[in-house]
Amino acid sequence: MSPKLDVDAFNTIVREELPFAHAVGITALSLSATGAVVLLPFDDQHLRPGGTISGPSIFCLADVCMYAAVLAALGPVKQAVTTNLTIDFLRRPEPGPLTAEGTILKLGRRLAVIRVDVLDASRILVAHATGTYSIPTARG
Amino acid sequence: MSPKLDVDAFNTIVREELPFAHAVGITALSLSATGAVVLLPFDDQHLRPGGTISGPSIFCLADVCMYAAVLAALGPVKQAVTTNLTIDFLRRPEPGPLTAEGTILKLGRRLAVIRVDVLDASRILVAHATGTYSIPTARG
Amino acid sequence: MSPKLDVDAFNTIVREELPFAHAVGITALSLSATGAVVLLPFDDQHLRPGGTISGPSIFCLADVCMYAAVLAALGPVKQAVTTNLTIDFLRRPEPGPLTAEGTILKLGRRLAVIRVDVLDASRILVAHATGTYSIPTARG
Amino acid sequence: MSPKLDVDAFNTIVREELPFAHAVGITALSLSATGAVVLLPFDDQHLRPGGTISGPSIFCLADVCMYAAVLAALGPVKQAVTTNLTIDFLRRPEPGPLTAEGTILKLGRRLAVIRVDVLDASRILVAHATGTYSIPTARG
Repeated sequence: MSPKLDVDAFNTIVREELPFAHAVGITALSLSATGAVVLLPFDDQHLRPGGTISGPSIFCLADVCMYAAVLAALGPVKQAVTTNLTIDFLRRPEPGPLTAEGTILKLGRRLAVIRVDVLDASRILVAHATGTYSIPTARG
Repeated sequence: MSPKLDVDAFNTIVREELPFAHAVGITALSLSATGAVVLLPFDDQHLRPGGTISGPSIFCLADVCMYAAVLAALGPVKQAVTTNLTIDFLRRPEPGPLTAEGTILKLGRRLAVIRVDVLDASRILVAHATGTYSIPTARG
Repeated sequence: MSPKLDVDAFNTIVREELPFAHAVGITALSLSATGAVVLLPFDDQHLRPGGTISGPSIFCLADVCMYAAVLAALGPVKQAVTTNLTIDFLRRPEPGPLTAEGTILKLGRRLAVIRVDVLDASRILVAHATGTYSIPTARG
Repeated sequence: MSPKLDVDAFNTIVREELPFAHAVGITALSLSATGAVVLLPFDDQHLRPGGTISGPSIFCLADVCMYAAVLAALGPVKQAVTTNLTIDFLRRPEPGPLTAEGTILKLGRRLAVIRVDVLDASRILVAHATGTYSIPTARG
């Protein structure tokens, strides 16, 4: 099954409508009918004391990955919104790019649940997130 | 009981060591021994489809508020890190400044747990977060 | 505003339809239009290594408290179900009864979000939970 | 790498020290150095309105699965305790036995993070949980 939105179309949405994500260089690498892979390039701006990447930067990556997975599964339901997100920060990532790999756990009529693994450049798991998106009734 | 770090000292940390938070204008308004109040000024950059403030911007505010509460309670343990954060997005805030009010629920030797109410300019509760910070053994 | 379900009606639901909660003696103490107070009496069966009350027993109390708050706000929508629940265990409670105090944070058309403080007999906060209930479309 | 606690030893702990879990028939099926598989047999006592298995019963299964994974990885650190647990209920399971498959995401000196998939008898994913255990300093 192919995704209902392709990578280029998603990255256009990031560029035009998610300024906070575009500003830090987030881009989707691949979308499928059941998931998404999204990249956060390295930038000094993400650092925090300890020389590691800040929690909010990792959260932003995980949340955009979930949004990509939902839009890939349903088409451009741009008004889908996060209702709940839980993130565990497991290890302090080395400075470098991070990749988020999202998998849809549930795709209901009203809610989607997605889990995301965040990996550093050595493919070490640095964070794990689970989130719920509310799907607007009138899709479009 | 007075806080172990004052607002000016915390805002200096934001300015010098939390570039991702400083870039969006986050500043603490008040600190006490048991909590903190932190402001996110309005900026178009935080918007997302639907004309509302993005989840990652709200997460960033909530996380910095928890960090402020921990440093106010313990002094400048700058290497304290979030281990877990759960956030519920309750209502789409109107465009405008947001305020986060954090309260320490537990202050242990190794872990602190903080809850945060995020209010919009009309003092409507728009998000609620709970998080755990790991406290470094050697404080300083 | 008075609740749409009274304490006796809720406790009848517990007794007749929530056998896992009735078995451990959970009962609502009070319901209001915006919250609920629910009791878990002490029983050796709830203990775990360390002589403290088990996490699952506290979770059960918190979840029933959320259910009580939702039914008090909406009437007997018995098929309302938890979609997500996060619980932080803050302190090991002394053996004794526990009380859960639930407050509705959001009451939407499709989702309700509730937070719960769990207190021990000395009114020390021992756990904090936040949960989301999905509200069935056809209420009854 | 073999687990530091075997299934029989874990099930003895359940029987002798986790009365709330033993009462509902929870038993571990397998333990490894990095995870655990735990069973909740079907019992009418777990039902709730809608004829489905109650959230607290599923939480109890997930939590015991995390405890099994931690003890399998570290040996019988019986006083390890849950500090935080988040659970998403994805689908209403059919009445029948449930299996929890736990995987350790992080094993630190002070904290372990575990994720759990809960499957019904048809191996449909019905719930997903992530939790943190605090590891006592003096292990034994």
